[in-house]
Amino acid sequence: MEQRISLITLGVSDLERSKRFYVEGLGWTAGFVSDEVVFFQAGPLIVSLFPFDALAADAGIPVAQASGGFALAHNVRAKEDVDAILTRAQEVGASLRSSAQDKPWGGYAGYFADPDGHLWEVAWNPGFAFTPDGGVRLGS
Amino acid sequence: MEQRISLITLGVSDLERSKRFYVEGLGWTAGFVSDEVVFFQAGPLIVSLFPFDALAADAGIPVAQASGGFALAHNVRAKEDVDAILTRAQEVGASLRSSAQDKPWGGYAGYFADPDGHLWEVAWNPGFAFTPDGGVRLGS
Repeated sequence: MEQRISLITLGVSDLERSKRFYVEGLGWTAGFVSDEVVFFQAGPLIVSLFPFDALAADAGIPVAQASGGFALAHNVRAKEDVDAILTRAQEVGASLRSSAQDKPWGGYAGYFADPDGHLWEVAWNPGFAFTPDGGVRLGS
Repeated sequence: MEQRISLITLGVSDLERSKRFYVEGLGWTAGFVSDEVVFFQAGPLIVSLFPFDALAADAGIPVAQASGGFALAHNVRAKEDVDAILTRAQEVGASLRSSAQDKPWGGYAGYFADPDGHLWEVAWNPGFAFTPDGGVRLGS
């Protein structure tokens, strides 16, 4: 598993309120906004605001456990790398939270939790472009 | 506040166990290891493993609240930017968790929490170098 973080998802209880805080409050510019998620391009990584219940459903964990939580994502260049990394993580002590599956947004992803329960999504997303040094950019 | 994340701190309950997971398990290479913290250079940002109780003390929150938690850091190039950003964040609805103060590691930093309680450290750290595009690197 390369030493990279592609995306940080912050679980939020009120997407509109959080969007206002980061956009109108802190002056950030959203790169993608929908009723379900807000993405910010933050240098070579993406910061995502995502409702707690949606994060719980996506990661296969109880909503109560997602509350207050977040997820890191490690994006890969090839779809088959997702399963390889999830398998390797489990071999070294991670817990599988959600098996890799095709996602409604067109990608393929699963989640593991590290020894303290920190969520890692391992994702192949054809909608994000890779930069030569492993960063990700919104837009393919 | 620029649209950047400089560092992600993962709170951990057992620093040795977590170091083994990321280094021996996932094959990451630590850039700095001490009895108190482990740093990984992950592209243009730094991933840090830091015990929950130390995170709680540093962020000025109860240990129970830090348990399971993490912190994002936004590093700034000039010491005086720390207070300006903490002030701005509070003006737009953030909660101050820890006023900016001189730190034993030679820097100056404070913490705010976003509307969902996600911790942001705003830090000036003379031990990290900035890249031209705003990334940070271990070593000055």
